[in-house]
Amino acid sequence: MVPTSPAADAGLVETERTGLSRRGLLGLAIGAGAAGLAVGAGAGAAAGVAVGRVREQDAAASVYDFFGAHQAGITTPVQDHLHFASFDMMARTDRDDLITLLQDWSYAAARMSQGLDVSATGAVGGSPEAPPDDTGEALGLAASGLSITFGFGPTLFENDGGDRYGIAARRPPGLEDLPAFLGDDLDPAASGGDLCIQACADDPQVAVHAIRNLSRIAFGRARLRWSQLGFGRTSRTTTAQSTPRNLFGFKDGTANILATDDAALADHVWVAASDEPAWMAGGSYLVARKIAMLIETWDRVRLSEQQSIIGRDKAQGAPLSGGDEFTEPDFEATDAAGAAAISEVSHVRLAHPEFNDGTRILRRGYNFVDGNNDLGRLDAGLFFLSYQRSPEQFVQLQRALSTDVMNEYIRHVGSGLWAVPPGAEPGSYVGAGLLA
Amino acid sequence: MVPTSPAADAGLVETERTGLSRRGLLGLAIGAGAAGLAVGAGAGAAAGVAVGRVREQDAAASVYDFFGAHQAGITTPVQDHLHFASFDMMARTDRDDLITLLQDWSYAAARMSQGLDVSATGAVGGSPEAPPDDTGEALGLAASGLSITFGFGPTLFENDGGDRYGIAARRPPGLEDLPAFLGDDLDPAASGGDLCIQACADDPQVAVHAIRNLSRIAFGRARLRWSQLGFGRTSRTTTAQSTPRNLFGFKDGTANILATDDAALADHVWVAASDEPAWMAGGSYLVARKIAMLIETWDRVRLSEQQSIIGRDKAQGAPLSGGDEFTEPDFEATDAAGAAAISEVSHVRLAHPEFNDGTRILRRGYNFVDGNNDLGRLDAGLFFLSYQRSPEQFVQLQRALSTDVMNEYIRHVGSGLWAVPPGAEPGSYVGAGLLA
Repeated sequence: MVPTSPAADAGLVETERTGLSRRGLLGLAIGAGAAGLAVGAGAGAAAGVAVGRVREQDAAASVYDFFGAHQAGITTPVQDHLHFASFDMMARTDRDDLITLLQDWSYAAARMSQGLDVSATGAVGGSPEAPPDDTGEALGLAASGLSITFGFGPTLFENDGGDRYGIAARRPPGLEDLPAFLGDDLDPAASGGDLCIQACADDPQVAVHAIRNLSRIAFGRARLRWSQLGFGRTSRTTTAQSTPRNLFGFKDGTANILATDDAALADHVWVAASDEPAWMAGGSYLVARKIAMLIETWDRVRLSEQQSIIGRDKAQGAPLSGGDEFTEPDFEATDAAGAAAISEVSHVRLAHPEFNDGTRILRRGYNFVDGNNDLGRLDAGLFFLSYQRSPEQFVQLQRALSTDVMNEYIRHVGSGLWAVPPGAEPGSYVGAGLLA
Repeated sequence: MVPTSPAADAGLVETERTGLSRRGLLGLAIGAGAAGLAVGAGAGAAAGVAVGRVREQDAAASVYDFFGAHQAGITTPVQDHLHFASFDMMARTDRDDLITLLQDWSYAAARMSQGLDVSATGAVGGSPEAPPDDTGEALGLAASGLSITFGFGPTLFENDGGDRYGIAARRPPGLEDLPAFLGDDLDPAASGGDLCIQACADDPQVAVHAIRNLSRIAFGRARLRWSQLGFGRTSRTTTAQSTPRNLFGFKDGTANILATDDAALADHVWVAASDEPAWMAGGSYLVARKIAMLIETWDRVRLSEQQSIIGRDKAQGAPLSGGDEFTEPDFEATDAAGAAAISEVSHVRLAHPEFNDGTRILRRGYNFVDGNNDLGRLDAGLFFLSYQRSPEQFVQLQRALSTDVMNEYIRHVGSGLWAVPPGAEPGSYVGAGLLA
C-alpha cells in the first residue's frame, strides 16, 4: 500500500514521501479479517497485472494538479459533474488522527487527480489475498478533469467536545455557523460538518469514485455526514465556457468571477497574506447552500414575470435593459411606460455589486435532482457553492436577497461553511499550515 | 402550442398531424390562472425571438429517431446518463385521457429527441403573458443522443379500480407482477407503476429536462410515482463502446446482446409477430430492478474472493478460465489444484446461457448514488434494466441467481415490469396499436 514501485508512479514521486500513514493502513484493513495481515506483503503478487488507471483513453481529458498555491476546484474550469461530501470526525480521535487523515487524503487525492488509483497497488495490483486499496470502478477512465478540494468546518476547531485537536485558537474569526436567513428551512442532517470534500469531474463515475475512496480511507477517523451529487454546472470560470442554465431555465453565472481576473480574485476570493489567520493565506471560504426549487410552481409563472423576477430575458440571458448576455445591466433604464426596465426587486439587481458595496463572490454550483416526493414532484434545485475571501461577503449578498421575489419559488434546505486552506506543496498535505 | 409555424419545425412535419391534444393544452394551462386564456394566441408575439434549441452546438452529438419499427432506447448505443420515471394514471381518468396523454407524450418526445423544445413555441417563443410550454433548461443544448422509451405496466390494464381504459382483455399474458425472489426487500414506493419512461442521453440535463417536461405534460392525467437518476452505463450495445464498470469495480455487460446481432435480437429481445398479443409485435418487455450494493462490505472482500464471486478477473474482465475479456468462459477448466477455475456458484456461470436453456436478455442498466444513509454509507448500487421478448426470461435468470454468493452484497429494493410497445409510425403515437 505504501508505494513499492516508484517507477510505475513517476508523476507523484514527491507525494510518495508522505505516503499512506500506518493509521491509514489500519483504517483500510479493519473489517477485512485475516486479510488485514497480508497488507503490505502483496506487491510481489502483482507481477504482470496492469496497475493503475488508463490515462490516455481520452486525449482531450484534462488533468489538473492537486498541488499548488491554491487548491484545485476553485478557479479550475468548472467541470460537468459534482460529488460533494461532508464528514464528521469520529469520537475519540486525536490530533494525530486528523493529521494522518489529511495526509492520506492528500496523497490519494493527488493520485486520483492524475487519473491514478488511490495507491500504487490500487484496484488490482495488490495481493489477491487482501482487499484492494482502490474500489476499481474508475479503472480505465481518464482523469476527466478531476479536482478535489478540502475544507474545514467551524466544528472541526471546537464543538461540544471542546478543542479536540488543539486548534481552537487558530480558528478564523469568521468561521462560524452562518446566521439564519429569512425563509431558511434547513435540515441539520444536510448541513454543516467538520470537514468537506468537493469532487468535480467531467465524468460522474470519476467524481463518485473519488468520494467513495476518500470515505473509505477515512474509516475509523471520519464518517460521511451528508453528500450531494450535481450535474450541469451553473457557472463558468473561463470565457471559453458557455453559460449553462439552472432548473428555472435561465442562464446562471454570466457575471461570475473568471479565473483570469487576478484583480477580482485577489479582492474577492483569495484570503490575503495580510488577512487573519496567516495559515489561510491563499485559501478561501466555501459556502454550500442546498436550494430546493419549487419547479412545478415556477413552471406556471408567465414568461414576462419569470423574466422580471430574474431581471434578464430567458432566451439570451440579456439584462432587461437591453443588449446581449454580457451587456452590463442599466438599472436607470425605463420601459415605454416609464417604469424601471429592471425591477428594483429583481434578482440581478439585488445581487449586483453596485448595490452591495462592490461585493462579489465566485460561484460554482450545480443542478440536482434527488428523485421525487410523495406528491409526484421532482425533488430538484440548485446546489449553490460559492468561494469568497470572507464569509461576510456571502452573508451580505444573501441578506440583500431577502426581498427577492424568487424566494417564493425556492427553499434553502441545507447549508455549510468551510475554511478552504491554500493548496499543499508537493510532498506536503492540505492543512499542513494549520497543523504542522 | 399547436405548432403554428411548420417551417420552423421542418424535421417533424409528420408529427404535427398529431399535435398536442386540447386536453394536453388544458393540462398545461391548469394552475396558470388567467394565463391559460392566452394559450394558442401567443405565437405572433414570438417574432424575432429565437425559438427551439440549438441543434448544432456539438456536431458530434447524436440524434436518434423517435419513430420507427422499434422504440429508441433499446438497441440504441447506450448513452451515459439515465433519468427513469414511473407514473400512475390519476383517479377518474378515462380511455380518452390515456390516448391523448400518449399522443402528447409522443409528440413532445419526438421533438425533444431532435433537440427541440416540447412545442413550436417552446421555452421562449410563446406569449410573454403565458407560462412557456417548455421549462427551458435544455435551451442551447444539443439533442445529446436523447432516447425516450415508453412502457405499460400491469396495473394500466387492470387494477383495483377494474378495467379503467377498456384494455384488460388485451393485456399480454406474461405482464403481471414479477414473482417474489429470494432476498427481495422491495419498497412499493420505488416499484411498479402504470406507465414508465426511460430517458437516456449523453447529457444528464437533457435527460432530466425530458422527464420533467413529460411529467408536466401529464398534469391532471398521470402523476410521477417514482424516479431514478443513473450514470456510467453498465452495458454496451455496440462493439464501438467499451465495457464500463459497475460499483463493485468490475466490467459489466461484456456478453450483452449487440444492436447488430439481428438473430439474437429476434430470438431474445423483440416480440415476434407470431407471439401474443399482436399489438406487441416489434415491442419488448422491460424489467427494472433497483439493486442496492453494500459497497463498504464488498470493498473489504479480498480480491481473489471478489473475482471468484464474479467468475472474471477484475483488471481485464477475462473469465477465470483464461483469455481476455471477450474469450468465452470455459466452465470445464480447472486450476492447478484441480478445482473448477470458474466456481459453480459464480455470477458468470449462474447467469450464462449454457446453464439457462440458452436464455439471454439485453441489459441496459446504470450505476446510481442517492446520497448516503444515517450510518454514513453511500446509498449506491445498480439500477438494472433489461429488455427481453418475454418476462419469463428474466424470471428464469433471476431464479438461477438464487445461489449467487453476490447476493450477500446486494439487496433488490425496487422492481417493475412494463410492456414496451413497438415504435410509433411518423404521425402516430406509442401505444396506438393497443388503443387506436
